[in-house]
Amino acid sequence: MSVTAARGFVAAGVHAGIKPSGDPDLSLVATVDGNAVEAAAVFTSNKLTAAPVLTSDAHLASTGGRAAAVILNSGNANAATGAAGRADAEAMCAATAAGLGCEPAEVLVCSTGLIGIPLPIDVILAGIPALVDARAEGTDAGDAAAAAIRTTDTFAKQSTAAVGNSGAVVGGMAKGAAMLAPNMATMLAVVTTDAAVDHDTLRTMLRRAVQGSFNVLVTDACQSTNDTVIVLASGAAGPVPDDDLQTALDSVCGDLARQMCEDAEGATKVIDLTVTGAASAEDAEAAARKIAGSALCKCSWFGQDPYWGRLAAEAGAAGVAFDQEKVSVTYGGVQVAAGGVTVAHDEVAVTAHMAQRHLDIVVDLGLGDGSFTVLTNDLTHDYVDENTGGS
Amino acid sequence: MSVTAARGFVAAGVHAGIKPSGDPDLSLVATVDGNAVEAAAVFTSNKLTAAPVLTSDAHLASTGGRAAAVILNSGNANAATGAAGRADAEAMCAATAAGLGCEPAEVLVCSTGLIGIPLPIDVILAGIPALVDARAEGTDAGDAAAAAIRTTDTFAKQSTAAVGNSGAVVGGMAKGAAMLAPNMATMLAVVTTDAAVDHDTLRTMLRRAVQGSFNVLVTDACQSTNDTVIVLASGAAGPVPDDDLQTALDSVCGDLARQMCEDAEGATKVIDLTVTGAASAEDAEAAARKIAGSALCKCSWFGQDPYWGRLAAEAGAAGVAFDQEKVSVTYGGVQVAAGGVTVAHDEVAVTAHMAQRHLDIVVDLGLGDGSFTVLTNDLTHDYVDENTGGS
Repeated sequence: MSVTAARGFVAAGVHAGIKPSGDPDLSLVATVDGNAVEAAAVFTSNKLTAAPVLTSDAHLASTGGRAAAVILNSGNANAATGAAGRADAEAMCAATAAGLGCEPAEVLVCSTGLIGIPLPIDVILAGIPALVDARAEGTDAGDAAAAAIRTTDTFAKQSTAAVGNSGAVVGGMAKGAAMLAPNMATMLAVVTTDAAVDHDTLRTMLRRAVQGSFNVLVTDACQSTNDTVIVLASGAAGPVPDDDLQTALDSVCGDLARQMCEDAEGATKVIDLTVTGAASAEDAEAAARKIAGSALCKCSWFGQDPYWGRLAAEAGAAGVAFDQEKVSVTYGGVQVAAGGVTVAHDEVAVTAHMAQRHLDIVVDLGLGDGSFTVLTNDLTHDYVDENTGGS
Repeated sequence: MSVTAARGFVAAGVHAGIKPSGDPDLSLVATVDGNAVEAAAVFTSNKLTAAPVLTSDAHLASTGGRAAAVILNSGNANAATGAAGRADAEAMCAATAAGLGCEPAEVLVCSTGLIGIPLPIDVILAGIPALVDARAEGTDAGDAAAAAIRTTDTFAKQSTAAVGNSGAVVGGMAKGAAMLAPNMATMLAVVTTDAAVDHDTLRTMLRRAVQGSFNVLVTDACQSTNDTVIVLASGAAGPVPDDDLQTALDSVCGDLARQMCEDAEGATKVIDLTVTGAASAEDAEAAARKIAGSALCKCSWFGQDPYWGRLAAEAGAAGVAFDQEKVSVTYGGVQVAAGGVTVAHDEVAVTAHMAQRHLDIVVDLGLGDGSFTVLTNDLTHDYVDENTGGS
């Protein structure tokens, strides 16, 4: 149960023929009656912006933040495809709107897959009527929609959370991106709720939820051309306390982000990496992102090597306030370095921790109160294999 | 022939016992008479600064830019070793000075290897007398010195260049760093010349040479705690035209940087990556470094995949002026994308180019006159293997 957990939404997933494998590749989330509801979205900040991102952004602007449906395809990103790509994205929305009986501008669109290859628009347009016909409420429909947006994902990512005691729920589905494959890039997420909430509040809440979830996920530090998170709010459950809705949104987005990290391409480790004791929160974030993005640190985690000096060296190169005499590092709560040098520690305990799938690493800069945690993973042979080839 | 090519210099390399393998691990470059000569250096900007860097920097400052020798060890970086590490670095200089009959402050010191492990200073001090005794002029001595600074290097890196028609020469040796191993990090280079040149000029020329060589080398974007480039000028060949000396320094540093890239850990490709048509030179450099540092782009080169969309996407995420409708990309001179979309091209020619060891890739942003070229390489299974383990 995911995008169909909240009242007022239907979903579907079918194989249209974009993927030669025969796997499902076309997905729909829509309101049950085809009427537009409150909607908000967060898009990639990459200046190479995929056509569906440009189209969805324009549609949301033209409707003042309302939408009736999201159509999504996997197998082709419709990015770096020029004016033809933008016409294709509009055509996907128009065909979906025709099926649902809404306006084209009330449909949002997401694509994920190959960059720089024209979208097989005829195949997609031919598949949309069957997709629209297949839309339904309930768990199976949500599962089908979540399955059809997978690319290199090994499992479908879904999450739900109750909105306090209000009876409303938040549900979401996502795919990718950690680690992004060059041919199968992008993280996409669609979240629905039956809470009644105005557009401005929904938009603010989504940004906050994304900031604490998808935006603290550091995989290979590459940014997709298509990243999109969309939320639709049907209002079917009536008004709810803002705090409860924010908490439920945070929970769903956080859970989906952790599932992405769990399913990162080739990764064998999921790491909660905290930089604390920084001169500021900004410094803590910069140092944490630098360490988490380092190929050398990622390899050390794959090798289960508590090589703290490399982590400290990345912090020293992060452009933040740093005093090498004050750095300490812990793995799984066991301090291996203090005052900038190795200290005696329980090596058996550290070795046991490094062998786990989930690692907790804390780098304390010893300077102030700034703290930041990112969710990251290791760099492995399988990552290299998944990203070497064959467009 | 490398650091002993210029008149007035001796060198040596021995096995002191730092490396369990028995390979040479202690290296010396010195003036033939033990007298200090003009010297300049460029050091890492990492705030986690290794003890030998701090020591060498202080020595150069105290002598006003003069030095009689450089002592170097491989097998241990003497980084993240606190006050004890700084005392060890001073002890290495003092022991070398005693052997040569110069002041300790006239000796510079470099270390490369493990971070965070105390230096085996007794082993090193015991080895220094034999190292000093072994110093000699000529090719064999230069070869021995270059061999003793290797860590994961598969070959010793040496280069020489004539200083115009002056009769003076520039020679240098280097190790690492591309790609840096976490346990065997660091790039080190020692360059000598018999040209007569004052300290300020030498320092300016070295900075310029480093800027155009080691600083355009982008491997895994990790910065060592120990990076050091030192130049010593004996003056034995008398004054030379500045332009000729700069050209020779540029040649030696450029050649050593290219050898590092050729020998990058696990790399199968050496890539000249140019970003041109940028709004400014700064934009071109930022985009080139972003592309060259991308794990996804590096994997595409390992996979011999002309996946231009990924390169363009990195440029779009580089924080530079970017218009996706104006990007073009060429591989080996064959244009595969123009106006932001794939264009018809000779696929056989591109496939043949991607199969070569050396790739020429140009990303044209189509906006202005800014251009910048970096030297980079691919991300491979062997890189992961070399960096997963076992401190």
